[in-house]
Parts: sequence; C-alpha cells; structure tokens
Amino acid sequence: METTEEQTSEFDRGIALAERPGEPDSYEGHLGAGWQVAAAVNGGLLLATVGNALRRAFQRDGHPDPLAVSAFYLSAARPGPAVVRTEVLRRGRSMCTGTASLVQDGGAGPVERVRATATYGDLAALPSDVHTAGAPPDLPPPERCLGTEQAPPGFAANVPILERLDLRLDPDCVGWAVGKPSGRGLLQGWLRLADAREPDPLMLLLAVDALPPAAFDLGVTGWTPTLELTAYVRALPAPGWLRVRISTSHFAGGLLEEDAEVWDSTGRLVAQSRQLARAGRP
Amino acid sequence: METTEEQTSEFDRGIALAERPGEPDSYEGHLGAGWQVAAAVNGGLLLATVGNALRRAFQRDGHPDPLAVSAFYLSAARPGPAVVRTEVLRRGRSMCTGTASLVQDGGAGPVERVRATATYGDLAALPSDVHTAGAPPDLPPPERCLGTEQAPPGFAANVPILERLDLRLDPDCVGWAVGKPSGRGLLQGWLRLADAREPDPLMLLLAVDALPPAAFDLGVTGWTPTLELTAYVRALPAPGWLRVRISTSHFAGGLLEEDAEVWDSTGRLVAQSRQLARAGRP
Repeated sequence: METTEEQTSEFDRGIALAERPGEPDSYEGHLGAGWQVAAAVNGGLLLATVGNALRRAFQRDGHPDPLAVSAFYLSAARPGPAVVRTEVLRRGRSMCTGTASLVQDGGAGPVERVRATATYGDLAALPSDVHTAGAPPDLPPPERCLGTEQAPPGFAANVPILERLDLRLDPDCVGWAVGKPSGRGLLQGWLRLADAREPDPLMLLLAVDALPPAAFDLGVTGWTPTLELTAYVRALPAPGWLRVRISTSHFAGGLLEEDAEVWDSTGRLVAQSRQLARAGRP
Repeated sequence: METTEEQTSEFDRGIALAERPGEPDSYEGHLGAGWQVAAAVNGGLLLATVGNALRRAFQRDGHPDPLAVSAFYLSAARPGPAVVRTEVLRRGRSMCTGTASLVQDGGAGPVERVRATATYGDLAALPSDVHTAGAPPDLPPPERCLGTEQAPPGFAANVPILERLDLRLDPDCVGWAVGKPSGRGLLQGWLRLADAREPDPLMLLLAVDALPPAAFDLGVTGWTPTLELTAYVRALPAPGWLRVRISTSHFAGGLLEEDAEVWDSTGRLVAQSRQLARAGRP
C-alpha cells in the first residue's frame, strides 16, 4: 500500500523500509536526524526499525507482533541510509523467531549497528486472562506533569527526538534536571507521539527507550549507551496516553541495568524491558 | 589443558566442548541426561554451554566473561551430542560481541535448539564501585531451609538436574509443593553445585535458571518452557553459597516473565536475568 508523506506519521516514516530489489529479506531505510540523542540515533527507534523488518518477514505467516526482542547495540547509528537484513530461525504454528541486522556505511565499509533476535506471534490471538501484581505509575494528570518545553534552557537542544515525543514527566522525578537527583533511580511520566499517532506494538519498542536515562536520577550525567536491550510486548495497546516507568537498582563497575514498564490508557501492562547500559561514575 | 574426569566437576563436564577438527569456531559437546527437567535439557545448562563456546572465542582477546547473554530457545534440547557454532560480530577494546548457535540432530536433519547473542568483557577489570538499591534475599540459614530430599515423594523423580544442585528453598516459599501456592510469584533459596564446585560467571548462567519456576507459586503447574532469557553477569562471584531470588509479576495471555537475582556469599549482586516463558492458566 502506497501512502503519501502527509498520510503517515513521523514515526512510521522514521521506521519505513523498502525492499531491496533482487535481495530477498533485505530492506533499505533512512535513519532521520530528528530521532537523534546527541550524535547517535535513539536505540528505541532502531529497535522499532529492526522490529518493522521482522514484522514484514513474519506477518504473512500470521505472526505480525513482536513478543520478545533482544538487541545488541554494536556501534552508534548515525542519521542516513541503513540496510536491514533478516533471517528466519524458526517458523512455528503460534510463534516465529528470526534475526535482524542493521548495517550502515561506516566510511571504510559496512558497519553493523544492531543485531537483534526476536520472537513474533499474534497478540490478538493470545488468551485474554491477565494476572498482574503490578500497577501503572501513579501520576498527576498530563497537564500537571512537565513537558520538555519546560526543561531548563539547552536541555532539549541536543536531543532532537524530544520534538517527536509528547513526554510529560512526573514533577516528583525531575530533580536531576536542576542538579538535584533523588538517588532513587526512578523516572516516570506520560508518553505519546507528538503527532498523536496511536501506539501499536512497534511504537512500544520505541517507548521502552524514549525517556531520559534513569541514571540521571542517580546523579549520573552524560550519555549512557545501551549495550543490550530486551523488550517484551505483552498486549496490544489501547489508543491514548501511555504511562512509562523506568528504574535502575544496580550500578556497578560502570554498568547499570534499566527496567522499563509501559502501561496503556486502560491500565494494562503492554510492554516491559530491561537494558544494560554503560555510564560514568555517579 | 587436559584434565581427567576425576579432576573436573559435573558442571564442567556438562558444558565441556571439543573443537571440531577443520571447522573453526565450531565445537562439539554432549548434553548429559543428568541435566534434564522432564524430557528437556535445562535452559540454564544450555546457556552455560553456549556461554562456554563464546568464552573460548573471546578469552584470547582478554574478554573471558559474559556480561550480557540473550538466548532464544527454539526447540527442546535432548540428552546427546550437540554442536555449537560461534560467530564474532564485533571485537572492541573493552568488550566483544558474538553469537552462538546450538544444534542437535533432530532425526530428519539438524535442528537449532538455542540461538544466543552475547557481549563479553573482563569482569576483573571493571571499576570496583558498587551502588545498589537492592539487598540479598533474607533467608534462614541453609540448614533450616528445605533441600530437595525433603520434597514430596515423586517431586524430584522427573527432574534429574536437582541431583546436580544443592538447593535449599526458603520454607516460606514452598507452599506450592503441597498444593498451597502463596500467589506472590516468589521463590528464593540458597544454591550451590552438589559437588561443591565454586561459582564462576558460567555457573551463574546456570544459576539464573536453576530453581523451580516462580509460576509454581501462582498455582501454575507443569512445564513453563522459556522462550527467551537474558542474563547479565554483574561481578565475579565469591566462593560459597549463592542466594537466588526469582519472581514473576505479570501473567497474561499464557505468557509470564520471570526475574532472577543471584547474590554471592559476600552479599554482592553477581547476576540478574529476565525470561519470558509460556505457561498454562493459573
């Protein structure tokens, strides 16, 4: 189906892929400068991009949705052309598993940016029972949370992705932005795409890595590049705001884990993730 | 270095690999019947086996330790011969990343059991600072916890791996064994290898998947096969008992996540993991 640029959202254009003629299971995309954090393209956008390639590989088998995706970030992706190649590992009745590799021209030749493995299925076909011991973050309404336009001057200047997102952080979790981290390692807030494109499983792959690092709340400043991130998509999200909570508990040896939970507007957990990231000293 | 069978532990024999002559980056092992859970070889033993192959690939570069390992379980592994093939994705100064594939003869041809991707480094070379918001499980001493020899008759009969482990479960977490699950989705206990072989990073890959499923404590009985498991090894473990806590919070659509924390005898978090597993209804 052809759609014009006017009809598609920024996010759908951001993860768009075209089949490479004569190269089966190979796709070409363009990583937009608008999805950068500092000089690198955001890891969540990369996850959604490789997730989009695997969706194309598996949706014809009736397995359109990522259930579990693990990505290793091998080198920082830059704005510009990218090629994604997929390989099917297993086609099952209820689930399929495959790998996707995102590669860019590194100047002296192709350089792999991301290697992902993922299991796909059909979220709509799963049994409807839900038992959860957790609860969505307890947040003030979006209009009483802090949008990035209220961030200190210069905060968003180096983070173009913030313009693609409507992110409203819990005022109780933003002390780090004025030099007063709480030390809890916790950030939470409301999230939707700035152009109001509704959430779906691929957008959830962006959502799990869309907030500022939880490490900021430990007083760790600067870039915390992800080494590995695993996301589980647990349900099809309802339209509307998402609530996202990220937290970190163990900082050691210059590495920390960050857990994310994404809850939809009906109060259902729709995605969870954990990543291992590298950071300076707190 | 050649060692005789008498000199090595059950675990080291369980994950032993021999290079396949003329096939670089290809190893042959034998999955022992003693590591089974029901008809399948335990996922933690498989994780340690592929981890052993990647260790051989990376230790000559000074990166002997798994930092992050993600494994997708594609089909149930059976006792018998297995081949592990590794591929290097990236060699860096402080870390290397590669993949490992474990394959067995499925009767009608080779069948992939596990596809893992992992980043290796040198845990001893990481900075020594530790900041943790967590704490090891609060357990009665091992002699007041419940060993598997105290399990109800028949419980261990189908789970040969329990003979390889010295597992002492917190008496407060074993109601499920007599039909009274607590509903918390929590199990914790002391763990070491039955032959007293001390923990190391590869043994931690076994430890994160060595307890009965946390789902048992929700009243979910039967097999809960792992779809994906990601383990982070956070530090070199000290000799002695490990304390392991596993928990699950979100059961939905026949799938549940299970988180594990492994703490060493000095009270340091040495490994953490999360897996997505399939289960019946609670």
